[in-house]
Amino acid sequence: MSQHIVVIGGVALGPKAACRFKRLEPGSRVTMVDQSSLISYGGCGIPYYVSGDVSEARELCTTSFHMVRDKDFFHEVKGVEVRTLTKATRIDRENKQVHLLDLTTGKESALEYDKLVIATGATPRKLGLPGEDLKGVSYVCNPDDATRIREGISKGEVGNAVIIGAGFIGLEMAEAFADMWGVETSVVEITGQIMPRLVSPSLAAMGQRHMEENGITFHFGESVKAIEGEDGRVTRVVTDKRTLDADAVIIAAGVVPCSDIAKEAGLSVHERGGVFVDEHMRTDDPDIYAGGDCAIVNNLITDTPTFLPLGSMANRQGRIIGTNLAGGEAIFDGVVGSFVVKLFETSMAGTGLSLDSALAAGFDAVSVLLVQLDRAHFYPTKELMTLEMVVDKSTRRVLGVQGFGSSGDAMVGRINAVAAILKYAPTIDAVSNMELAYSPPFAAAMDILNTLANMADNVLRGINRGVGPDGFKEMWEKRAESDVFFLDCRESGDATEYLERNPGDWHNVPQGKIYEKLDEIPKDRPVVLICNTGARSYEAQVMLTDRGYENVTNVHGGMAAIKKFGVDL
Amino acid sequence: MSQHIVVIGGVALGPKAACRFKRLEPGSRVTMVDQSSLISYGGCGIPYYVSGDVSEARELCTTSFHMVRDKDFFHEVKGVEVRTLTKATRIDRENKQVHLLDLTTGKESALEYDKLVIATGATPRKLGLPGEDLKGVSYVCNPDDATRIREGISKGEVGNAVIIGAGFIGLEMAEAFADMWGVETSVVEITGQIMPRLVSPSLAAMGQRHMEENGITFHFGESVKAIEGEDGRVTRVVTDKRTLDADAVIIAAGVVPCSDIAKEAGLSVHERGGVFVDEHMRTDDPDIYAGGDCAIVNNLITDTPTFLPLGSMANRQGRIIGTNLAGGEAIFDGVVGSFVVKLFETSMAGTGLSLDSALAAGFDAVSVLLVQLDRAHFYPTKELMTLEMVVDKSTRRVLGVQGFGSSGDAMVGRINAVAAILKYAPTIDAVSNMELAYSPPFAAAMDILNTLANMADNVLRGINRGVGPDGFKEMWEKRAESDVFFLDCRESGDATEYLERNPGDWHNVPQGKIYEKLDEIPKDRPVVLICNTGARSYEAQVMLTDRGYENVTNVHGGMAAIKKFGVDL
Repeated sequence: MSQHIVVIGGVALGPKAACRFKRLEPGSRVTMVDQSSLISYGGCGIPYYVSGDVSEARELCTTSFHMVRDKDFFHEVKGVEVRTLTKATRIDRENKQVHLLDLTTGKESALEYDKLVIATGATPRKLGLPGEDLKGVSYVCNPDDATRIREGISKGEVGNAVIIGAGFIGLEMAEAFADMWGVETSVVEITGQIMPRLVSPSLAAMGQRHMEENGITFHFGESVKAIEGEDGRVTRVVTDKRTLDADAVIIAAGVVPCSDIAKEAGLSVHERGGVFVDEHMRTDDPDIYAGGDCAIVNNLITDTPTFLPLGSMANRQGRIIGTNLAGGEAIFDGVVGSFVVKLFETSMAGTGLSLDSALAAGFDAVSVLLVQLDRAHFYPTKELMTLEMVVDKSTRRVLGVQGFGSSGDAMVGRINAVAAILKYAPTIDAVSNMELAYSPPFAAAMDILNTLANMADNVLRGINRGVGPDGFKEMWEKRAESDVFFLDCRESGDATEYLERNPGDWHNVPQGKIYEKLDEIPKDRPVVLICNTGARSYEAQVMLTDRGYENVTNVHGGMAAIKKFGVDL
Repeated sequence: MSQHIVVIGGVALGPKAACRFKRLEPGSRVTMVDQSSLISYGGCGIPYYVSGDVSEARELCTTSFHMVRDKDFFHEVKGVEVRTLTKATRIDRENKQVHLLDLTTGKESALEYDKLVIATGATPRKLGLPGEDLKGVSYVCNPDDATRIREGISKGEVGNAVIIGAGFIGLEMAEAFADMWGVETSVVEITGQIMPRLVSPSLAAMGQRHMEENGITFHFGESVKAIEGEDGRVTRVVTDKRTLDADAVIIAAGVVPCSDIAKEAGLSVHERGGVFVDEHMRTDDPDIYAGGDCAIVNNLITDTPTFLPLGSMANRQGRIIGTNLAGGEAIFDGVVGSFVVKLFETSMAGTGLSLDSALAAGFDAVSVLLVQLDRAHFYPTKELMTLEMVVDKSTRRVLGVQGFGSSGDAMVGRINAVAAILKYAPTIDAVSNMELAYSPPFAAAMDILNTLANMADNVLRGINRGVGPDGFKEMWEKRAESDVFFLDCRESGDATEYLERNPGDWHNVPQGKIYEKLDEIPKDRPVVLICNTGARSYEAQVMLTDRGYENVTNVHGGMAAIKKFGVDL
């Protein structure tokens, strides 16, 4: 039984669904329409084209074997008919037709379908500001934007760039401007940190610091009031606190799902946009599927509807839709929210819920932060990695893990291992015993991920009681008003410079000498223990607790975290 | 209630169990005995000390904060008493005593325990050959061996080295001899491939080829008959096929668990050695625990007793024993068998069962091999990665994944993501939808792991019917006697050199032109389809099948796999 499938939208999910279906039912017909002239491009690659890492914008529109994915390609290689510059204006469910408008000729037409796929994607959130339409103001949306932005930079027209929004795209674009081209780049963010809601303030501060070291300026807690220009070109960004010179402005304030056509057709749509689908990616019309950036999916951790626009998600959902169009019963059960972003020589990644998100979702959650080497301590390429695990206190369930590390694949590999199990609602013990492949060039005998879970276990048991670098900073800055006893429990050589710089405030007893030098540690003052990464100070905490010390706090992540976080010590 | 814990064995599991217990019960006493003078060393680091990657043997015996883990360290820092050069000769379960022999003084004594931990480890398998005790013949066992081997090399005494066994340690030692020191190195292996039982012959051949390019010589299917020497020093290795000059010989033929003391005490021990334990790591005496290289654990995929000696396993089990010694109920549920080994600029890793192991365990299994880029095709640091997935045909259960890739962390990250879920008995669909963190510098929008599962799905559906590079090689070498039609379905430019080199044997129709040029493809001959990686040839297979071609085979991994595998084309 031959079918005609119509796909509205030709960027990520649309082509994937179309091609998968055609491979399963080569005898059926697929028509894909898109309002743009560009289809099937790698939008996520735009920052890397702007930065120069990718030399030609064309590469974002080709296959890995260098063929341009255009109309002809889809026709010849995939057997899919494509109509570009064609807008789908209305879905007539009763007559199973999509109404089309040819944007070149202005001609209207209708296309009958047996099954329909809504793959309309998302569109950058506009801020509704004066000056948002000035030349030089861009939303990072498609390869044409990319070409325009890079042209401006390479012609030397951009001395100052302002990025609005410190999420993935904002940060990637900030790096693109500053790294290769040396543009003075500022990021304005309305919340107090980079990657808000995605990572903790501690991890965010580490990433921010690294970006500042690479020349980026951040303005947190500021909102943009106007974008100003001269002769139609942007020249300034005005926030509620300052005015920034700007020859280029990137608005990266998130995206909104394009679901109007679905809503107008009477399909269920989320109040903030996004088409509701079941686990087969079917809308409430059994002949209409939706997926990718225009759809709402289930969050497997909170069990709530979630909008998670990601190219990878769109591809996986596209395959499922393709299978189901051909009579299959493939299932997309939901999302856990995995992400990674490269920040110069470092990267930030995560999966599941951050502590903030977990608390907001109603979990009685706590997080622990660990700094450890990413492979055997004797192996020459070792590097420190920071991971934070969010757990539910009563059930010991792992709700998420986030990390900050080098730009290599080591950290994202750990995040992915947790991402893989999150849907099984694992407890801490599952990660504690996770059997990661071991060899000194790749992992420590007790891998950082195992240790992270062990640490969470110790925190929940109440035997490791501590604060992260943010908590330490607060205590250190208030030391004049408190009677906290800061005890460095590393070997004396490591402590010397801090003792000299902070006479009276900094103390040192190596962990192995604690029982011997117990009289040097006051029992009636709060004691804060610090070592390199928090491991020896944990041992010290156990020892002091055993000897009746009641108020002992361990600094999680130790000096390593403090340095990455930035404390004036 | 204070207890006295005795731990027999001080390398990996012993110290971990001892220290974990002391942190939970600082008031209790722990005594750890070891027959050697060296304790708590990183044995897995030995090849990297021999190679020179690790500069001092001492580094294998220190903490990450540079303290030597010796008797004094354990006493001061960990509160654990250690007796080195002390052999545990007998366990008297009735009186809860361990009988000890002081190897320095010859004095015997007995030590009472409340609970006992058997952490006696494993010992290298001896071959029982003439000459095995000659100077220059080593088992890679402890830092003393490492020091001796490296001394010999650095003094210029080693021109030729022979490694017996092509498992992890054999291959790591082969690299150590050849890479930095330029020693002529041969590996003799009794089976037909490197990493037998762990990876498929195809992956093994890829690793072997890379090692050969780095100067290693392999002799497969040969067994060593004698080791010969002059003046007490090794000079030759004699196999059943040849005689090899050798100034150094490494015997890396596996290890055997040291479980005699447990057996003599009447505890359940596997017929081939190894103490049986329950999921709390308890032997059948509730006061005696065992773990690490001397214990037998449950394989979570085959549900059979398994001997899997790994330093990482020992550490994780050690913590569990430590917890349970203090009254906890921590569980070690079993192993899936994850591994990774670095081979010069590449690495080989895996988790779960290889196809051979799966078939041997009685599964009706099949494997699929995929070659794909490890990140976005437009991102400059992309590299090809090869992954093989083993699945059970009827249940679609994923039994294992193995891979070959660069020596970076990208491949092992993918293996770890699968390792993490194997205990949940995932189907192909779990990997197909696995939500890996996505960003072009780290992954493709459809990650190689997702694609691998999709490919397995297509193979089980019967729409992707193919062979790996080994199957292709066989067909190609027998082409004179067969009527196989080899069809390169890449763009013409890519096919030219093969057409010119193999006139009459090699044919080319780009996949996008197949319908157009159907008359160039014979319907009455078996057709074998080849492209760069197997993706376009799969599309071609779908098209030809749709047009009634009945005998069409796709070469999985395509030219990329063929080149890594080594076929004369």
